[in-house]
Amino acid sequence: MQRIVVDMDGVLADVAEQFFRYDERDFGIRKEREAIAGKPELEVFKHAARHVLEPGFFRTAPVIKDSQAVLEAIHQRYEVFIVSAATEFPQSLSEKQTWLNEHFPYISWKQMVFCGLKTIIEADLMIDDHFKNLDHFKNSTFLFTQPHNLHQDAGRHKRVDSWSEIGKILL
Amino acid sequence: MQRIVVDMDGVLADVAEQFFRYDERDFGIRKEREAIAGKPELEVFKHAARHVLEPGFFRTAPVIKDSQAVLEAIHQRYEVFIVSAATEFPQSLSEKQTWLNEHFPYISWKQMVFCGLKTIIEADLMIDDHFKNLDHFKNSTFLFTQPHNLHQDAGRHKRVDSWSEIGKILL
Repeated sequence: MQRIVVDMDGVLADVAEQFFRYDERDFGIRKEREAIAGKPELEVFKHAARHVLEPGFFRTAPVIKDSQAVLEAIHQRYEVFIVSAATEFPQSLSEKQTWLNEHFPYISWKQMVFCGLKTIIEADLMIDDHFKNLDHFKNSTFLFTQPHNLHQDAGRHKRVDSWSEIGKILL
Repeated sequence: MQRIVVDMDGVLADVAEQFFRYDERDFGIRKEREAIAGKPELEVFKHAARHVLEPGFFRTAPVIKDSQAVLEAIHQRYEVFIVSAATEFPQSLSEKQTWLNEHFPYISWKQMVFCGLKTIIEADLMIDDHFKNLDHFKNSTFLFTQPHNLHQDAGRHKRVDSWSEIGKILL
């Protein structure tokens, strides 16, 4: 069975939306989606570096559309691991696991990986929204579209815009 | 540079000693080392399943002899990752990272992996005290001697009894 590794932030958890909300809370106005297109979140949201350290930021992130149903079907046909860069923000570790347990109850603790660099991960396919993770990966790669990676040439990675698109490819 | 993955419990963190201490706390008498040789810790320490869930169990574990100095020298010559099965006990995640930061400050968050199954990890050498992790690993493997794996034939794995022995092999 093929092994698929799925990123959390920006693939399952809508951290971009979370940045919009926290930014609006701090500055009183919601940014336009176009204003952040193609720009790193840490650059475009002035308090982003603070927001990711706030208790609750990861715990209360919204779920990305269709990810729960499509990933469940994928999980039934492939070996799925959720691999999240989390050790940079230690308080996020338990928040992320609790979040996964709530929204993706079919994913067991055996299938969770919270790490720093993802270069140590071996699988057949990696689904991620960051080039820094995909570029080091030697097998198949899907670049999940997020505001920060818009306008960038996906290069050797296959760009996917939604979970329904991923489902059409893998199921 | 070769990549080496190092387990925490039973390789860096002396969880066997921790079980001895918690067991003595609960039952008023310290078990003999020979009494647990070759037996799973969860079997031989009656409250072990409860102890690993107690806040502080992983945070206050003693450090295994020579591991700090030898691993630092290894870290200077190899690419080192600490890979710990931690998601089975979610409360252990932050305790383990804090413990690593305290006792192995040269290990950055980039080099930490907290996971369930270790089958997803790719490296040249794995140092671990459990056959369940080593048996699935396709490259070199060191079985770190712990009470629970005494009397077992190491099979294709190289048995190492101490960090000074590991240092002699790798440095």
